[in-house]
Amino acid sequence: MQKPFTLSVKVVIRDAEGRCLLLRRAQSSKGNPGKWEFPGGKVGTGEEFEQVVQREVSEETDLTICLQRALGTAQADLPTRKVVYLILEADLESGPEPREVLLSGEHDGFAWLYPHELLTVDLVRHFIPFVRRYAQGEV
Amino acid sequence: MQKPFTLSVKVVIRDAEGRCLLLRRAQSSKGNPGKWEFPGGKVGTGEEFEQVVQREVSEETDLTICLQRALGTAQADLPTRKVVYLILEADLESGPEPREVLLSGEHDGFAWLYPHELLTVDLVRHFIPFVRRYAQGEV
Repeated sequence: MQKPFTLSVKVVIRDAEGRCLLLRRAQSSKGNPGKWEFPGGKVGTGEEFEQVVQREVSEETDLTICLQRALGTAQADLPTRKVVYLILEADLESGPEPREVLLSGEHDGFAWLYPHELLTVDLVRHFIPFVRRYAQGEV
Repeated sequence: MQKPFTLSVKVVIRDAEGRCLLLRRAQSSKGNPGKWEFPGGKVGTGEEFEQVVQREVSEETDLTICLQRALGTAQADLPTRKVVYLILEADLESGPEPREVLLSGEHDGFAWLYPHELLTVDLVRHFIPFVRRYAQGEV
């Protein structure tokens, strides 16, 4: 019996200087506590992926974004299922500066990093191949 | 006003020899008639992406597949919306050979090509960057 696949959407949010937002998973997280990741979440049945992105970003950061393009994919092979990550790029929606990130209980830290700095933090492992390509400007 | 994004899932189906299935869009197609593409289709509201893949592959080819992994993305910028393509890889489900491809009215030709041959046909333009990487073994 093959494991089911589920879809999760993650978003690389860029600020006006081209820095990207990473969030650190809370120590209480079931999976990958203390590791860094991009905002986003699972696309459940009956949900449009674009709405999921906006909602998850709002819940996890309180930011409003403007989706730009698809960047790539990642994948996690869990004991009972495989998760496919669709990774998008977005800009902060224009408006009054500065933008304040308000975290949910899911994360306990955030950082705005230039693409070449993204590999300097302890990323959730399954995003590393994608981030390596992104940091090298290959996407 | 930003254009809405819609999600489409495409799948690179491989046979036992590692050849990939391409389909040629019918001359009656509204978009890209006569161009080559991978099977798959739009993920509508309320649909699980994995079910969409299986259904579209069944409708367009009559084949049954076993999803393997996420390969990458593509994007099309249409007049009224942007389409994000999530591209997966799948094997033919094991069973009696040979497998016969039965096309729907949406396509009028098919070909099993090795990855390095994929760029020799007239592909739907927005898949070319992805296929270039795939053909070079970069995904």
